[in-house]
Amino acid sequence: MLLPCLVAVIYREASGLSFVIAILLCMAFGFLLSHKKPASTVFYLKEGFISVSLSWILLSVFGALPFVISGEIPNVIEALFESVSGFTTTGSSILTDVEALSHCILFWRSFTHWIGGMGVLVFILAVLPMAGGQRMYLMRAESPGPSVEKLVPRVRDTAMILYGIYTLLTVIQIILLLIGGMPLFDAFCISFGAAGTGGFGIKNDSMAGYAPHLQVIVTVFMIVFGVNFNIYFLLLRRKFRSAFRSEEVRAYLAIIAASILIMTWNIHDSFSTLWEALRHAAFQVGSIITTTGYATTDFNLWPQLSKTLLILLMFVGACAGSTGGGIKVSRLLIMLKTVKKELFSFSHPRSIKKIKMDGRPVAHETVRSINIFLIAYMVIMAFSILLIGLDNYSFTTNFSAVAATLNNIGPGLDLVGPVENFQLFSPFSKCILIFDMLAGRLELFPLLILFTPATWKRN
Amino acid sequence: MLLPCLVAVIYREASGLSFVIAILLCMAFGFLLSHKKPASTVFYLKEGFISVSLSWILLSVFGALPFVISGEIPNVIEALFESVSGFTTTGSSILTDVEALSHCILFWRSFTHWIGGMGVLVFILAVLPMAGGQRMYLMRAESPGPSVEKLVPRVRDTAMILYGIYTLLTVIQIILLLIGGMPLFDAFCISFGAAGTGGFGIKNDSMAGYAPHLQVIVTVFMIVFGVNFNIYFLLLRRKFRSAFRSEEVRAYLAIIAASILIMTWNIHDSFSTLWEALRHAAFQVGSIITTTGYATTDFNLWPQLSKTLLILLMFVGACAGSTGGGIKVSRLLIMLKTVKKELFSFSHPRSIKKIKMDGRPVAHETVRSINIFLIAYMVIMAFSILLIGLDNYSFTTNFSAVAATLNNIGPGLDLVGPVENFQLFSPFSKCILIFDMLAGRLELFPLLILFTPATWKRN
Repeated sequence: MLLPCLVAVIYREASGLSFVIAILLCMAFGFLLSHKKPASTVFYLKEGFISVSLSWILLSVFGALPFVISGEIPNVIEALFESVSGFTTTGSSILTDVEALSHCILFWRSFTHWIGGMGVLVFILAVLPMAGGQRMYLMRAESPGPSVEKLVPRVRDTAMILYGIYTLLTVIQIILLLIGGMPLFDAFCISFGAAGTGGFGIKNDSMAGYAPHLQVIVTVFMIVFGVNFNIYFLLLRRKFRSAFRSEEVRAYLAIIAASILIMTWNIHDSFSTLWEALRHAAFQVGSIITTTGYATTDFNLWPQLSKTLLILLMFVGACAGSTGGGIKVSRLLIMLKTVKKELFSFSHPRSIKKIKMDGRPVAHETVRSINIFLIAYMVIMAFSILLIGLDNYSFTTNFSAVAATLNNIGPGLDLVGPVENFQLFSPFSKCILIFDMLAGRLELFPLLILFTPATWKRN
Repeated sequence: MLLPCLVAVIYREASGLSFVIAILLCMAFGFLLSHKKPASTVFYLKEGFISVSLSWILLSVFGALPFVISGEIPNVIEALFESVSGFTTTGSSILTDVEALSHCILFWRSFTHWIGGMGVLVFILAVLPMAGGQRMYLMRAESPGPSVEKLVPRVRDTAMILYGIYTLLTVIQIILLLIGGMPLFDAFCISFGAAGTGGFGIKNDSMAGYAPHLQVIVTVFMIVFGVNFNIYFLLLRRKFRSAFRSEEVRAYLAIIAASILIMTWNIHDSFSTLWEALRHAAFQVGSIITTTGYATTDFNLWPQLSKTLLILLMFVGACAGSTGGGIKVSRLLIMLKTVKKELFSFSHPRSIKKIKMDGRPVAHETVRSINIFLIAYMVIMAFSILLIGLDNYSFTTNFSAVAATLNNIGPGLDLVGPVENFQLFSPFSKCILIFDMLAGRLELFPLLILFTPATWKRN
């Protein structure tokens, strides 16, 4: 919170004081908590899950303080919605006029994306001393994707490498945007949002007002941040063959390419040149599949095929081990492979082919946990759509609002389209969507475990 | 087809001749096919799947002949749509005015529901001589639900018992409707549609024009036909405790009761009395969860909560081993139990609890095949919604059209709501929806196997 304070000083904004108050409250609360020593230091997967989900809830509450204290988002639930949307890198907003916010608050909104993108606890892992077992369970609970790979033997080193790559790429993007002529403040905020695949805009028309070449830079970087970070580590280590062999990244790029082509063909009537249609299609596809949520145009007005394609891309999501949300390309690949194997087994009942990814067999445990993930995902989705149905908005609005929050996208369709916002929902529905954003970012189970009675019983 | 001929004779309709022509074509085609003796009589699961799916495709083609020959549905794709919708017990129609059809054609439409409900091949199993292995694989491919239980050791006897119960319940319904004052012709057609959970109406307003007490009778029978038929067999055998212990049936009835209560509360403002709201809620819930698709009112005008609940019930579907479609209650129960077990295992990592249904452990193979079913289901659904998006109708229309055909319901929402029809879609979209209806009725894999290259390679 020191950074938005600095922004407030530069722009001489009174709202900066709210960050000072929030900092003091955080310190007081932290001081109180650190006095309570735990009776047991046993730390397994369950403790990792609970720590991560409670940390994210606390983080969101404290992150919302500046909004409330400054009076820029006076309603507590709306401030929490905005804060959760920021940290979970969703980018759904309840604000009707973001341009009315002060610079320090705008900076904070975008900065929460950057913190939440790579993971708050991964950051803490990188800087705080902690036992090895604790670290691994924390990392496993917070990192997106079906399985967590340690890049190097020590978790702390892995966390530092990830944050190093993340920071480097963000800095490169900021520099390129500055060269392209974007103002410094905008370059920072837009880069934070793209890096964390968040998508909070600092203009009411999101990215529509920026020059085409700036939109292209952001398109490329959104797609870059949706790639599994292990790939960048392999590239840094000059293991080019391993990097290019990644089935997930190849599928991810193939889906992007195919979607851009279909969408360009589908929307080209609405634009004066094919290049313009291509640019908008690429931006929107990159923005949605990486679960960022920036927009250069109101795709709510596009033909149904393109809109449906965008909705499907919301579910696909980015690569595992990236900052993006959604189901993740690797999960989908493994799912499709189980179906393919099943169809093959009808003709070859005695075959014992194993499902493989990148040439290595996928553990039975991974397949099982992906299946359970899909079921839990569908159940949360179904109940969320039903419950926000109480507000009596259209099915498209409700379906896309849940899809956009559970997958950490940002905008949906119809009443929550890219030029609209989430203000219209009742406080109850906002709470449901807050739950969905957290569930999506933490990949369901760390949050669901809080609602399981067995978790709270002493063994 | 002799039955609609009889109807044509009674009503002195010229369209009856089209059935005579269709019968002759069937005989000629059957005569040609029966001359070709198979080189190999090996018959396993794959052959069972292929036989069933090809049989259903042929059946639909021949079932469409009377529509085309009589000139009452001259368009070939539309006639096929109507025929597939009939046999798969979907009940989606491309007709804007069903009351313009002749009685024999109306009777045929409803009768295809009755044939398709219990299964065409189950019927053949009951009457034709065939080897034991062949029978079992055919039955497994055609019967809905995650696992097929033989009621008695011999497949042929099982098939006969199932058809016996089915016929008996249908006859009881016809008698009750006649006592209630429904005309004979209507009683037959409505009962066929309810028994097969089909839902083709013989009036343009579906069931809205019938007296309330007739609607109540149909409500009860729709729900009755959505129960696993094994239960009726247990009841006939006086095994009351086993029958009432069925977790699936209890969950099915609990979902129905809860949905009716929520919906009555949600819609009671639109009706003059609470009883009327309850009656309409019960009819619509019963109609949708059993995947029948009759309607007593235009639920497209209901509040969003009720509409969303109906959409979710479309996916739930009826019990396994009933005539209903959808995902099936037992599959959902097993899915939810896997999630519950996973959440429990976080706190008790060394526990080796097995998932149980009705007190017996569920085979690992069953859980696995349910998971693969869910994935294949989602993939077919996603691509169908995308492809019919080409017609540029609303997302709600497309989503509910695919939900209504893949789950064999009938009506959807918006432009395919209960007072609308599927006429508006392009021939291409109609073909997609025909595929969905067949895939839904045969539970995906028998149809998907036709598109798998490995199926057609010689081992």
